[in-house]
Amino acid sequence: MVDLWFSEYHTEDVRFSIKVEPLWSEQTKFQRIDFFRNATFGTFFTLDGFLMMTEKDEFIYHEMICHPAFATNPEIQRVLIIGGGDGGTAREVARYPTVQQIDQVEIDERVVRLCQQYLPQTASVFENEPRLKLHFVDGVEFVKNTPEGTYDLILVDSTDPIGPGEGLFTLEFYRNCYRALTPNGSLINQHESPYYPGDAREMKRAHQKIKATFPIARVYQVFKPTYPSGLRLFGFAAKTLDPVTDFKPELWQQFKLITRYYNTDIHTASFALPTYVQEMLTEDA
Amino acid sequence: MVDLWFSEYHTEDVRFSIKVEPLWSEQTKFQRIDFFRNATFGTFFTLDGFLMMTEKDEFIYHEMICHPAFATNPEIQRVLIIGGGDGGTAREVARYPTVQQIDQVEIDERVVRLCQQYLPQTASVFENEPRLKLHFVDGVEFVKNTPEGTYDLILVDSTDPIGPGEGLFTLEFYRNCYRALTPNGSLINQHESPYYPGDAREMKRAHQKIKATFPIARVYQVFKPTYPSGLRLFGFAAKTLDPVTDFKPELWQQFKLITRYYNTDIHTASFALPTYVQEMLTEDA
Repeated sequence: MVDLWFSEYHTEDVRFSIKVEPLWSEQTKFQRIDFFRNATFGTFFTLDGFLMMTEKDEFIYHEMICHPAFATNPEIQRVLIIGGGDGGTAREVARYPTVQQIDQVEIDERVVRLCQQYLPQTASVFENEPRLKLHFVDGVEFVKNTPEGTYDLILVDSTDPIGPGEGLFTLEFYRNCYRALTPNGSLINQHESPYYPGDAREMKRAHQKIKATFPIARVYQVFKPTYPSGLRLFGFAAKTLDPVTDFKPELWQQFKLITRYYNTDIHTASFALPTYVQEMLTEDA
Repeated sequence: MVDLWFSEYHTEDVRFSIKVEPLWSEQTKFQRIDFFRNATFGTFFTLDGFLMMTEKDEFIYHEMICHPAFATNPEIQRVLIIGGGDGGTAREVARYPTVQQIDQVEIDERVVRLCQQYLPQTASVFENEPRLKLHFVDGVEFVKNTPEGTYDLILVDSTDPIGPGEGLFTLEFYRNCYRALTPNGSLINQHESPYYPGDAREMKRAHQKIKATFPIARVYQVFKPTYPSGLRLFGFAAKTLDPVTDFKPELWQQFKLITRYYNTDIHTASFALPTYVQEMLTEDA
């Protein structure tokens, strides 16, 4: 057996490494995709060398990108997912019987096809969910062309703001999301991590643009062992509904979903941020 | 310049590595001590190869082991610290002018002396704090010989339950802590991490023993980038005061302490645990 390690550099002098068996490697028009297997984390994949999700801890990210929005607005019917080619976010959305339409825009069809092959735990939703429609186009363009007031929820499950994900962190994109949302609509986005300086700079930039676009712009935190520093933020932007003051735990509990990370205590708790993160979010980027 | 990396194995197939300049290495009667320097984390040290604290992120752990107890019982006067040879925990305790006595028991004097040399940010408390008395003895023995009702607060800032820290995770030790505490007393202990299976087993074992000893036995979580998986738990055990229902934010705010991680929203939020952690804490170890 070859002693082979995948490493992700969190800074130039800090790295996280996982012993792997390589499963597949491919360069697409958009990015390099690698699938690996590891005893601790199960099957996982990377895009341009950045770890996206692992079989064992994906439940944390996918529950937390999805359920806080539904517990704030249990009447969500039409959902747009941008990115998220592994299917985990769509799987969680599809658990709500009240959802009528899920549009998912993934720029790189190969991510979806490879996840269907190697990660059925998340990607089987693409075969089994009649309410879901896949669009293999650029999310930035898709939202630009979306009629006003189309979606109750937009979930941006993207890579970092380099490479294919870059346009999803611009003011123009956030403005188009605002326009595409219904009056009670909300936008949840992958909001980087506050710990390492490079990540924190992107977090501050994204937050300033979202604050300039939406009257309600909150940030909540999730602990995820395979992301840099273990802490990942999500942005919760909305036109009218505040995820803390408009939180509806009793209504959410009526969905009777079994979850492994999210619960109604964690909902409110996730919006309480460490003082240093609060301060960063008010600083200029 | 030599390209030198310190690695900590979080499991046998997952490791976290930091590029280092070595500062000092020493084998004491109790353990191997190494001090390193790194651009991202500053100076840090390891005991038997396990990372204990770094200059840059130590504020998270030290604020969070200390302040929740004072915000639950602002009348704490007598404090016992076990372990914590770097001084960070003592530094936070010493910020309360109402504290009259701090006994600190560190089994290995060399940890204290080396931290005084390499980490004055935390260890300068040992020179500057007249209320603090250092005892270089075994914490297990010290607590066994402590008269009933001596301390308002015991903070166990220990290594993992292997090597010198092992006795600090036993039922006998927790019973002696109970006896040594005043009626409103509480015991805060480093409670391992729930993510990787080896750590989670120790967490469950510790929690069962504490629950069997104290009427109030809560667990709270802290995000710390240099600990395995980024998530670290503390145990909050008490005779009478519950850290959530007896929390006194207004009284704590009167101390006017400036903190970088802890705040009164984080206090309550830290006791909200992910569902999978809640379930682990009720399972048999």
